Amino acid sequence: MTDFTLTNATLIPCGPGAPRRIARGWLRIVAGRIVAMGEGEADGEDLGGRVVTPAPIDCHTHLVHGGNRAREFEMRLEGASYEEIARAGGGILSTVTATRAATEAELLASALPRLDTLLAEGVATVEVKSGYGLTIADELKMLRAARALAAVRPVRIVTSWLAAHALPPEYAGRADAYIEEVAIAGLRAAHAEGLVDAVDGFCEGIAFSPAQMARLFDVAAELGLPVKLHAEQLSHLGGCQLVAARGGLSADHVEHATAADARAMAAAGTVATLLPGAFYTLRETQMPPIAAFRDAGCAMALATDCNPGTAPLTSILLTLNMASTLFRLTPEEGLHGITCHAARALGLSDCGRLAPGLRADLAVWDIEDPAELAYRIGFNPLHARYFEGRKC
Amino acid sequence: MTDFTLTNATLIPCGPGAPRRIARGWLRIVAGRIVAMGEGEADGEDLGGRVVTPAPIDCHTHLVHGGNRAREFEMRLEGASYEEIARAGGGILSTVTATRAATEAELLASALPRLDTLLAEGVATVEVKSGYGLTIADELKMLRAARALAAVRPVRIVTSWLAAHALPPEYAGRADAYIEEVAIAGLRAAHAEGLVDAVDGFCEGIAFSPAQMARLFDVAAELGLPVKLHAEQLSHLGGCQLVAARGGLSADHVEHATAADARAMAAAGTVATLLPGAFYTLRETQMPPIAAFRDAGCAMALATDCNPGTAPLTSILLTLNMASTLFRLTPEEGLHGITCHAARALGLSDCGRLAPGLRADLAVWDIEDPAELAYRIGFNPLHARYFEGRKC
Ligand SMILES: [Zn+2]
Ligand SMILES: [Zn+2]
Repeated sequence: MTDFTLTNATLIPCGPGAPRRIARGWLRIVAGRIVAMGEGEADGEDLGGRVVTPAPIDCHTHLVHGGNRAREFEMRLEGASYEEIARAGGGILSTVTATRAATEAELLASALPRLDTLLAEGVATVEVKSGYGLTIADELKMLRAARALAAVRPVRIVTSWLAAHALPPEYAGRADAYIEEVAIAGLRAAHAEGLVDAVDGFCEGIAFSPAQMARLFDVAAELGLPVKLHAEQLSHLGGCQLVAARGGLSADHVEHATAADARAMAAAGTVATLLPGAFYTLRETQMPPIAAFRDAGCAMALATDCNPGTAPLTSILLTLNMASTLFRLTPEEGLHGITCHAARALGLSDCGRLAPGLRADLAVWDIEDPAELAYRIGFNPLHARYFEGRKC
Repeated sequence: MTDFTLTNATLIPCGPGAPRRIARGWLRIVAGRIVAMGEGEADGEDLGGRVVTPAPIDCHTHLVHGGNRAREFEMRLEGASYEEIARAGGGILSTVTATRAATEAELLASALPRLDTLLAEGVATVEVKSGYGLTIADELKMLRAARALAAVRPVRIVTSWLAAHALPPEYAGRADAYIEEVAIAGLRAAHAEGLVDAVDGFCEGIAFSPAQMARLFDVAAELGLPVKLHAEQLSHLGGCQLVAARGGLSADHVEHATAADARAMAAAGTVATLLPGAFYTLRETQMPPIAAFRDAGCAMALATDCNPGTAPLTSILLTLNMASTLFRLTPEEGLHGITCHAARALGLSDCGRLAPGLRADLAVWDIEDPAELAYRIGFNPLHARYFEGRKC
């Protein structure tokens, strides 16, 4: 691994308490880590004043899945009812069917173009969930494919066990049994295989109850795994309070969260992960309580939510624009949402900021001001990407 | 120029009356034109079933301009009022100042990354407007830069004279004089230089009146130039009826158009050009009357509206997704909006469709169904682009 210094850069450190920007800055990289940084003259590679940020982190994706839902998208726009779409095999179960039918190698191959699109925007860390297998074997297969991504691309993959994503038809009316027999039994198997970095669930009227999530979280605690939750997306069920009470990493979506939820999350150090791509695709009107998160001091992360149904989105920069356009986040809040706060949402303390000791996961942008990252729509000004100090 | 045949393709002809798709199709290209096409076996380059569409056409852009408005975008999100932004030099006049300060070479250089982003999605034809110079010399400079784009990239550029875009401060309170002394006198000069393919204007309370546009259109008619208009975006002023009465190419934005407008436009052959990127950025709520356009048989085109203020958008595919997500166009309507109807909106009859005799401007996509183009967000499945039969 080469040691080198980047000079004449506009550094955007992104840490809490860090300066907003360091003009004419330099960064010294040794063995894949930032070892020193500062302002002023230095010998090294001249970046011509370009902006350097921590490499973006996509902290909530369903990147690994079978098939796509373009036909369902088209049917809905052609006027088909949800019932007609369901009868035609649409909805989340169509993705479950396609995912079950795919081999691990096929899941890996189909995820790669999506991953490559993220990497082309400088992304260095991607969270990937299971949740479309809904059998133990198929959930394990998904996470093996997710882990395999990091073997074929220069990227760090963080996994979440999301068997509690939807109830498969074979368990209709037996959600508690599904939680025990698949979500929990599978979690133990996946954990034994080293496939699980965190435990996730979908806490919603159309999915699982807070009580079922609490049962799953008990097992996560027993295994020493952190928890997170798809919470308060379509209604307010108490998921934010549950995940905060367990000291969880993040509550995600959170359109229907309250000010009390924001305070509980802030106190617990639980991050609010906003997913504007799903909000946009579903044409939702209930905005997440941004002001409440700000007031409470609750960190807000941003992610693509890349999934075939409600957010077929593979651009972290577009996510940034949507967060500003739709949720009114400032460009700086947005940038922190895909860097330092996204790292926190994944329980990672070695990335997401520019600071000595951290991984040299860097994005160099051909822009003058970091606000341009949120301002432009469908434009990628990435100049270079560094993954653990390697330009790639 | 090479002659060749593309085989085993899923052809999407996109013409009115043409089949929706031709499975296992072939296309014969000679001297940059499609000379024959059909279904079945043929000798040639095997596309492996990939989808072939006409190359997309971006029929409404302000691609050539100085500067960017990222700082203004940021100020607004940080809570600045419109007055504060104006005092800080923001708004359209900041782009006018930057455009006036730029040389033709600088305008060309700054437009190229935006153009390249469009070309990477297969776009072969781009309309480019003047409108940020607002002096005769600076408007001419913009259109010279626009023409120069086609000299340095494999793209067809179609220009519009849009001096009637905004009233510059030196003409405050003297809009009629501006129309005569700059918009009309400049049009004559630009036309004499071969810089103008069509005449455009911004017909709105904050810009110019229908009477002022009618005066400009009289001169366009005298010069034999087709007309188009930014019409009914923020209010209903009668721009659609005006442009239809003149047999104009298109009325653009048209959020506030009526069913009567749609009928007049259909009868006149005037295309409704929808610009969902501006609708999205401005968080508008008044949707264009899609059902009325459908009922009237008024063709709907789609374009990026790429501009630094209200749509810093450089993705035709994202435009397609926004048209479906925000305006509920079907994927097929959207695809026609960026192909055959976009060609009509530019007065071009030699592109935008797959048919014998047309230019071989083609996009080959790594997808199974054309609906995937509208379905995905921030993903580019382009496999190859042909410009006049050249792969580039
Ligand atoms: Zn999710
Ligand atoms: Zn425009």
